[in-house]
Amino acid sequence: MFLRGLTSIVAPIQRRSIMSSQIPTKFDQLFKKVDELKPDFIDVVAQAVAIPAVSSDESLRPQVVKKAHFIVGQLESLGFTDIQLKPLGIQPPPVTNPNLELPPVVLSRYGSDPNKKTVLVYGHYDVQPAFKEDGWDTEPFTLVVDEEKGQLKGRGATDDTGPLTGWLHVVRAHREAGIEFPVNLITCFEGMEESGSLGLEELIAKEANDYFKDVDAVCISDNYWLGTRKPVLTYGLRGCNYYQTIVEGPKADLHSGVFGGIVAEPMIDLAKIMSTLVDSDGKIQIKGIDEMVAPVTPEEHKLYEEIDFSVDELNKASGSNTALYTKKEDILMHRWRYPSLSLHGIEGAFSAQGAKTVIPAKVMGKFSIRTVPDMDSEKLTKLVTEHCDKEFAKLNSPNRCKTELIHDGAYWVSDPHNAQFSAASKATELVYGVKPDLTREGGSIPITVTFQDQLKTSVLLLPMGRGDDGAHSINEKLDISNFINGIKLMGAYLHYYAESKEN
Amino acid sequence: MFLRGLTSIVAPIQRRSIMSSQIPTKFDQLFKKVDELKPDFIDVVAQAVAIPAVSSDESLRPQVVKKAHFIVGQLESLGFTDIQLKPLGIQPPPVTNPNLELPPVVLSRYGSDPNKKTVLVYGHYDVQPAFKEDGWDTEPFTLVVDEEKGQLKGRGATDDTGPLTGWLHVVRAHREAGIEFPVNLITCFEGMEESGSLGLEELIAKEANDYFKDVDAVCISDNYWLGTRKPVLTYGLRGCNYYQTIVEGPKADLHSGVFGGIVAEPMIDLAKIMSTLVDSDGKIQIKGIDEMVAPVTPEEHKLYEEIDFSVDELNKASGSNTALYTKKEDILMHRWRYPSLSLHGIEGAFSAQGAKTVIPAKVMGKFSIRTVPDMDSEKLTKLVTEHCDKEFAKLNSPNRCKTELIHDGAYWVSDPHNAQFSAASKATELVYGVKPDLTREGGSIPITVTFQDQLKTSVLLLPMGRGDDGAHSINEKLDISNFINGIKLMGAYLHYYAESKEN
Repeated sequence: MFLRGLTSIVAPIQRRSIMSSQIPTKFDQLFKKVDELKPDFIDVVAQAVAIPAVSSDESLRPQVVKKAHFIVGQLESLGFTDIQLKPLGIQPPPVTNPNLELPPVVLSRYGSDPNKKTVLVYGHYDVQPAFKEDGWDTEPFTLVVDEEKGQLKGRGATDDTGPLTGWLHVVRAHREAGIEFPVNLITCFEGMEESGSLGLEELIAKEANDYFKDVDAVCISDNYWLGTRKPVLTYGLRGCNYYQTIVEGPKADLHSGVFGGIVAEPMIDLAKIMSTLVDSDGKIQIKGIDEMVAPVTPEEHKLYEEIDFSVDELNKASGSNTALYTKKEDILMHRWRYPSLSLHGIEGAFSAQGAKTVIPAKVMGKFSIRTVPDMDSEKLTKLVTEHCDKEFAKLNSPNRCKTELIHDGAYWVSDPHNAQFSAASKATELVYGVKPDLTREGGSIPITVTFQDQLKTSVLLLPMGRGDDGAHSINEKLDISNFINGIKLMGAYLHYYAESKEN
Repeated sequence: MFLRGLTSIVAPIQRRSIMSSQIPTKFDQLFKKVDELKPDFIDVVAQAVAIPAVSSDESLRPQVVKKAHFIVGQLESLGFTDIQLKPLGIQPPPVTNPNLELPPVVLSRYGSDPNKKTVLVYGHYDVQPAFKEDGWDTEPFTLVVDEEKGQLKGRGATDDTGPLTGWLHVVRAHREAGIEFPVNLITCFEGMEESGSLGLEELIAKEANDYFKDVDAVCISDNYWLGTRKPVLTYGLRGCNYYQTIVEGPKADLHSGVFGGIVAEPMIDLAKIMSTLVDSDGKIQIKGIDEMVAPVTPEEHKLYEEIDFSVDELNKASGSNTALYTKKEDILMHRWRYPSLSLHGIEGAFSAQGAKTVIPAKVMGKFSIRTVPDMDSEKLTKLVTEHCDKEFAKLNSPNRCKTELIHDGAYWVSDPHNAQFSAASKATELVYGVKPDLTREGGSIPITVTFQDQLKTSVLLLPMGRGDDGAHSINEKLDISNFINGIKLMGAYLHYYAESKEN
């Protein structure tokens, strides 16, 4: 609770009163400079937020590219070198404009000292769509600095424009404070994250032994604290296998008055199959999945016990009292380290308001399974399709049924005590006066696994914002204290990591 | 089969060879005049089809009104009197334009002889949407006269512009042949049938003792032969009770990565409930419904045995081999006189192409039950809601669930041997040389029951087109032989009905 009101102005005083003697002079100077430059830093965020770089809106593609150029301008002014706007080619279908170029990836370097470690920082400059009519209190593409609440409000404030610019601010603070930058920095800023990171995986693979060849560690600042009070470091993500079960019968949609009761309806078969996948208490009913899940060790269990979280926070986040578990450990484990199965919807059926007396001819039930260690994606798909085939066979239906994988993204778990995580933990203690919680995420950030696999490096997820920032929602915000402390944290992490003996 | 190639030119010869001596002279004259006027009649249909009177498209509302005025012009030229364009007020929401006027109902009279019976003929001048891109071979709003196939092709040809104009052609043929019109005719032509007949029920109730006060019988020509070969008279319709089961939990849609496995998902509960309503073999699983259905008498069973139909025709119509029954009688009874339950879809869930990892917060499962004698609508709704509540309770879910009736339309069954039906049967034999099949329909025409109840009269459904006309589909057509013979049939029916002793 004591951190809630911590602003960038109050923070140094409080910190000093707790542990003034431990703070090395260089951090003192650096953090003072960060505090001094706060108005400038916020101004950069405001300029960036003003560009509506919505990657999912084809008509706004020029704005996405404009934002890439804005970042290039910032990099140039800060002395970054080897700045490249890497083209990713034409966007694959479905697109309206068949010649639509993907937005470029912004690569750049700050420093190239062979005696220093090299850290690649990833961020994305594109944003989710936003319209004032959606329910925003203010214009989404005009950054509002709410001094009373201590918040920056606007689309991209926390996802991911604020954190992305954080890395630039760290460089500027070092320059203006006259402190040597501790590592070689490489930026990898993409403009398609909110639309599936199209083309990025290929670029990373291509640059692994080229632009990225000296990278020792990757740091991604594109997630959030678990709650609103305690900083976290994130060491794991669930994967996602997305499926569809297709049931088809008649050649075209039929009228339920004329055909109801005399033809086998695909929707009836599909409802039966979908109802067998998972129970209302969240238990997956597909045989063989539980056996693939790595058992919980006592050490791992202890990790969850130590985390600051409660069922009230979950209920607040979902806006309901529909939590399946009340114990903190159960909630966290089922979010992070157990698989889950969600039913998303049905394509091809009636889905509008009102009443339509249609018998849909072809329906596609969509569901996905969040995957965790040690689930094997191929084996999972085999279990899923066999289950659905078996359930369909029970129905004795003359319709046709097929279940297929739409896409899969691997889970990721890192060692939360390696050099990077240790450095980030130490930096968190320095800036926030508290050890960070070690968290995972229930969702996926597929690019994490790509970086780890392609660059053969450790990846750290170092969030800047809080769990209530409303990343994809209306009135997206970033607390100013998180912004300023986040910049300090990024800086301290780079120094501690530079000093660590191992990679 | 012998009827398939029967054209309006060949028909009189064949008919004469069968039963020339029985044909009264007035029918000879009348039918000859109908044949003569064929090019003019087709021209009127062509002019009417050219007006894209799509009632569901707000932007085309002026065209719907234009078509009403076109009909008024026709009525005036034929000597109809007391022509009124009855306004129905503003269209209720949901609409884009809150001041959108409903299209008017065209009322008119032809004759007012107190010694004659009065027949109200109903038709609708609005049509379903149609775009060439949907797959039409030709422009949908340009009537194509395909002499080779003997078909009129265009939106509204069979539903219901062709049949509606049929009544006007009957009048014209009488006038030009110098034959006295046998009854007083009242037209009730609406422009919202394809969009729920908004406002019509109220108008009928209002005019029951006014414009419609002398009506002895109502004839609706807005359905189709069962197949493609044999004319039918229709004496029954199933009703329709449309329901939605609403399950809601979270305040807003959630991300399945973050919340999957830790909150109770409304979609999971809904899939469970929907799967309990009906089995893949079409059997309704809600207790108490079967007991409400009137038993089949041996006489009724015999009716189905006599009808010209086969499972092949059903499979051809559905474009698949997904029929639940193979015996003709089983198919016809399950289409016409047994209830059926169809699952239409889900509102609020993901329904687009591709993959979206959403946990929908509020989902509405849509389903409907086709009703038959002696099902009571209120009792049915009670059984349905109780069933869904019970199934939901079994799930022990923290979500909320409610099932509600969206709308109901009553079933209708008439005496197929009353004065009107006997007259129409006799007329069919005269024109087509064959006794018509007595059919019901699986679907609903709610206005049928309204006319019957409000005007306290018998209603006859007298179809003009064939079962393969593609009424709501692409390449809608009306066979020219059905058009011309249909006009003759309308005329003969009016004469025979006028001569009958009872009403």
